[in-house]
Amino acid sequence: MSKKYRVGILGATGTVGQRFVQLLENHPQFEVAALAASDRSAGKPYSQACAWKLAGAMPEYVKEIIVEPITPPLDCDFVFSSLPSNVARETEEAFARAGYPVISNSSAYRMDEDVPLLIPEINHEHLGLIEVQRRKRGFGKGFIITNPNCAVVSFAPPLAALDRQFGVESVFVTTLQAISGAGYPGVSSFDITDNVLPYIAGEEPKVETEAQKILGTFADGAIRKADFIVSAQCFRVDVLDGHTASVRVKLRKTSTLEDVFEAMKSFPSLDLYSSPKEFIIVCDEPSRPQPRLDRDNGKGMTITVGRIFPDNIFDYRFVSLSHNTVRGAAGAAVLNAELLIDKRLL
Amino acid sequence: MSKKYRVGILGATGTVGQRFVQLLENHPQFEVAALAASDRSAGKPYSQACAWKLAGAMPEYVKEIIVEPITPPLDCDFVFSSLPSNVARETEEAFARAGYPVISNSSAYRMDEDVPLLIPEINHEHLGLIEVQRRKRGFGKGFIITNPNCAVVSFAPPLAALDRQFGVESVFVTTLQAISGAGYPGVSSFDITDNVLPYIAGEEPKVETEAQKILGTFADGAIRKADFIVSAQCFRVDVLDGHTASVRVKLRKTSTLEDVFEAMKSFPSLDLYSSPKEFIIVCDEPSRPQPRLDRDNGKGMTITVGRIFPDNIFDYRFVSLSHNTVRGAAGAAVLNAELLIDKRLL
Amino acid sequence: MSKKYRVGILGATGTVGQRFVQLLENHPQFEVAALAASDRSAGKPYSQACAWKLAGAMPEYVKEIIVEPITPPLDCDFVFSSLPSNVARETEEAFARAGYPVISNSSAYRMDEDVPLLIPEINHEHLGLIEVQRRKRGFGKGFIITNPNCAVVSFAPPLAALDRQFGVESVFVTTLQAISGAGYPGVSSFDITDNVLPYIAGEEPKVETEAQKILGTFADGAIRKADFIVSAQCFRVDVLDGHTASVRVKLRKTSTLEDVFEAMKSFPSLDLYSSPKEFIIVCDEPSRPQPRLDRDNGKGMTITVGRIFPDNIFDYRFVSLSHNTVRGAAGAAVLNAELLIDKRLL
Amino acid sequence: MSKKYRVGILGATGTVGQRFVQLLENHPQFEVAALAASDRSAGKPYSQACAWKLAGAMPEYVKEIIVEPITPPLDCDFVFSSLPSNVARETEEAFARAGYPVISNSSAYRMDEDVPLLIPEINHEHLGLIEVQRRKRGFGKGFIITNPNCAVVSFAPPLAALDRQFGVESVFVTTLQAISGAGYPGVSSFDITDNVLPYIAGEEPKVETEAQKILGTFADGAIRKADFIVSAQCFRVDVLDGHTASVRVKLRKTSTLEDVFEAMKSFPSLDLYSSPKEFIIVCDEPSRPQPRLDRDNGKGMTITVGRIFPDNIFDYRFVSLSHNTVRGAAGAAVLNAELLIDKRLL
Repeated sequence: MSKKYRVGILGATGTVGQRFVQLLENHPQFEVAALAASDRSAGKPYSQACAWKLAGAMPEYVKEIIVEPITPPLDCDFVFSSLPSNVARETEEAFARAGYPVISNSSAYRMDEDVPLLIPEINHEHLGLIEVQRRKRGFGKGFIITNPNCAVVSFAPPLAALDRQFGVESVFVTTLQAISGAGYPGVSSFDITDNVLPYIAGEEPKVETEAQKILGTFADGAIRKADFIVSAQCFRVDVLDGHTASVRVKLRKTSTLEDVFEAMKSFPSLDLYSSPKEFIIVCDEPSRPQPRLDRDNGKGMTITVGRIFPDNIFDYRFVSLSHNTVRGAAGAAVLNAELLIDKRLL
Repeated sequence: MSKKYRVGILGATGTVGQRFVQLLENHPQFEVAALAASDRSAGKPYSQACAWKLAGAMPEYVKEIIVEPITPPLDCDFVFSSLPSNVARETEEAFARAGYPVISNSSAYRMDEDVPLLIPEINHEHLGLIEVQRRKRGFGKGFIITNPNCAVVSFAPPLAALDRQFGVESVFVTTLQAISGAGYPGVSSFDITDNVLPYIAGEEPKVETEAQKILGTFADGAIRKADFIVSAQCFRVDVLDGHTASVRVKLRKTSTLEDVFEAMKSFPSLDLYSSPKEFIIVCDEPSRPQPRLDRDNGKGMTITVGRIFPDNIFDYRFVSLSHNTVRGAAGAAVLNAELLIDKRLL
Repeated sequence: MSKKYRVGILGATGTVGQRFVQLLENHPQFEVAALAASDRSAGKPYSQACAWKLAGAMPEYVKEIIVEPITPPLDCDFVFSSLPSNVARETEEAFARAGYPVISNSSAYRMDEDVPLLIPEINHEHLGLIEVQRRKRGFGKGFIITNPNCAVVSFAPPLAALDRQFGVESVFVTTLQAISGAGYPGVSSFDITDNVLPYIAGEEPKVETEAQKILGTFADGAIRKADFIVSAQCFRVDVLDGHTASVRVKLRKTSTLEDVFEAMKSFPSLDLYSSPKEFIIVCDEPSRPQPRLDRDNGKGMTITVGRIFPDNIFDYRFVSLSHNTVRGAAGAAVLNAELLIDKRLL
Repeated sequence: MSKKYRVGILGATGTVGQRFVQLLENHPQFEVAALAASDRSAGKPYSQACAWKLAGAMPEYVKEIIVEPITPPLDCDFVFSSLPSNVARETEEAFARAGYPVISNSSAYRMDEDVPLLIPEINHEHLGLIEVQRRKRGFGKGFIITNPNCAVVSFAPPLAALDRQFGVESVFVTTLQAISGAGYPGVSSFDITDNVLPYIAGEEPKVETEAQKILGTFADGAIRKADFIVSAQCFRVDVLDGHTASVRVKLRKTSTLEDVFEAMKSFPSLDLYSSPKEFIIVCDEPSRPQPRLDRDNGKGMTITVGRIFPDNIFDYRFVSLSHNTVRGAAGAAVLNAELLIDKRLL
């Protein structure tokens, strides 16, 4: 067995940080070497610094690690970052400049034109931006790559499947998002019990812009964004994990319903450790996908689509679902790290 | 004080039937004279036949009334019907033929071309169909009028406001519907806790067709349907009461955001007993409307709209909410009965 | 109509403060003259300082009132206080010393031996402590009275009914408490969705001690605590409003089940404005009380009891319910103020 | 690898039946050979007969098995039964009489004096009743063994730990039970959203009697019941899986808190395939156990206890939790089958 990469986690005590800790237990390529969190936590063993909120107990391996401040150097080969956006901008640059590859779940750099915004199955060639970025920013060995907003991930994969084959022109998406997307303590129970919230601060613009970049093409050292338009309305519902998206799409080429099914089903997964067997599962049952039943498909890394029908205004409508803290956050970053290894960029 | 109309309720023990019982307590124009329900209930006092499910105790006035079978004659001036669709078709006709005005919440006759589908503030002139209906079906004094599906009611009013002023061309609506819409026992708790259901049997076609009829114009003894297209995706969420609709709309005339606000706010209410002071409330707060906070506006008879913004594909997007078992069911039928009195049709 | 008392609310922007604002709208004896809240809110109109969280809109009457800091003087006749316990100790004394009657929902002074802890139907004679308190603390016109912890209120009334007639010796109580009891934002949705919390910080000791004082007797200028023992286990459940208590009780005298029913049902209510018609409602249906169906009995001021049965270890078991933010907080304080008027202490 | 036992499942399409199907996938000792369900399902492949309700997809291995009627013979070595109680009495006897060992999750035979009611870690010696039963009922190779009611399982293990060491005299238990305990569709969402139900039909008597039998001693061909008394109040809360029990216990011998901790922690697990590493986990954190976080401990087979404190009326209080459809139903039956193999009774 080969040597494992030594990993640091920035923001290790938050809910996404906890998912990193969970997903990296027994990972064949990575071992957690450093945990960094806010000053309040620094200096304490993780077991004291972190109020564990995921099902099951805190993994043993992490309990005695002493939490460090979120500043370089950290004793590790690269870092995962799940810092809040306001902190991330400065801190992630500091780590990149200090020579660390930064694999970020934060929104801070996602839309910077020299930073890859990755869903590996869709756009791994965007990794070409790393060289551009290093040159432009004067980074040495370090760089920053990002994964998308969790709501975007819930529908970008079937969109990519359609775009490749038929060209997408316009997309209406309405999301029903899980409470874990707001972190912890996040949404007050008094706001969401017997209720729906019609507003998630800052979410709709992210959903409307990130998809264009993700499905864009890399050429001449830059991403040319996909030229479809996305209109998003984002809701919060009383679901623990799993973002559901209600989608209508207008295509550039005519296509049959069978073609649409096939385009989604046949979209290839990758051969990375965290890759699910199927990137997209298409359900036949009329009442699927459902977040509680389908969010854990492919260990939370599969996108589940259902209710695909011809639309009476646009071309097709469907419902798409992904696990927002796995495929939409920590799992996405881990997959990005595995992709870097595969492409010899770590 | 004038004589009260004597009312019968068909389907009196169901959840909508219970809402009728609640709304008619102390109503100045109506008194409940007859309660009819399935054979299982017939012959028992209402207090025994009905498992009361609404907040607060069963009203005293109704407890000793003996439930009767759902067949004419009933000792009353007219009937409210909240029968299941399969039973309603035959039974409501039998009552109409026996001379009873039937004010129905069932879907059975809604789309029949000689049956009014009423939201009184929008289309009370459709009452003109009653004469057509009597002639066509050979009814004597009896007739059938209906109110719309509860999901349609959540967004048809703001749509009507826009259609009158700017003309509506296309509408995408995604609904987040409350569990009470499924009746009792309705949705299993095992299906909806920590979950969202992406499918409500038969709902999307109703939403797509009823709005066209409601906003249609009555002329020459018939309704000419409005010529916009509606595309609907319907979801069930873990909310007790209150259907929320996420809407995008394409208009025929250009309009400013101020015009849109004004068109909705100024849409007049009526002067009937159950009419809310405001037919449509428009919220400024970014996080409203919310079902728990806004469903009871206007005692459940007001439509609450918010998050009105220009859309980047269509013209406008907004969120609209109504109380599905009041404005969307029993309250709608009571308002229809008040309208009939006002128009001297009872 | 007589002059209304001019009221100040300390902690006006919190969830209990909002309940005060709601309950005092159109109150025949009180008008809100001053609103006080933390420095962050002071200086702003209430409509801006307060994020309204109760169903329905913020009452119009309160919107333009400028929020003041929580220090005397305030331009009012007396104050309601819903301050956090740590702030309340000092601030409430300052107001009392400045001559204001302080009607407090805080826990700070509840167990002080010269401070009444009131459920007016049970122990209004404890008001005799006010004179003791004024003398001991050197207050002039001012004084402090309190209402109990919201969990205690859910079962103290049926306990008092039993204690008066049969003598209570021991009480086991297990509470299932609503999320609104934790204030706002209070309980994270991530903690309570699909979950139960077996711990509420500081709650069990309050439940175990307050009941003894409430049911104590006032004589010779002091309260002699009731001599039963209470054992409490407190849980948080995903319910918006309404604390449910599971109770077993050991009595000093034997009693029949009919006696127990009768003792509870016949416990008299008072003739104050906010008094419910029935202080205690006893349900016959096997599945009642339920928080959603019964919390609003008596406009939230009635205690609803059910499932009274002989116990196989102690004498009786039953389930008791009250609305925690009305009878258990703001409504209790308003009732206390009405009691003070009735006893000519305001 | 040795030959697997061929298993039949009676009631295979219900929620407990589905748990059997899930738990038996890849089980090293068992393979599913026959699925039996009601007449409505018989004759169809399982994939059509069963509306799969558990997270994740229906296991492939079971999809094509044709469901059979619930009558012997079935082509298998023994049967698991999760039949409703009314059907179970007759059907399970028929299978036992036809020579099948019946491992039942139903309540039908639990309290029959010649039928073992098993929690293997506590009372595997009760298997001695099988010989008594065969003789008494004239069964040949067949027999019936049972596992307890799911609510009893949530607290019987820590009770057994205390009983062995200190003797238990009296137990008050208040349960907060999950909705999955009611099967499917089970509890209406309209009954449990924003609510608690204070009544579960037939549950309290089971909880009060089964624990005495489980902790009883087998001697002279009979069980002598444990001589403590249990008082139970049972509530339904909006939790998917995991029954929580609030417990107070009076002991016969004095014991320190450390003794109590130690008695629970050191209660040995068994060495069967489905045995958890720890039979009882004792939590130190004040806010544990919680159903969502702890129900899956030991793959749903561990009992998690916390909040152990001296009580002020009885000796100790604590909170205990188990997974009601795994340890409290299907998992318990599978463990019973493994125990039979271990004791050479299959």
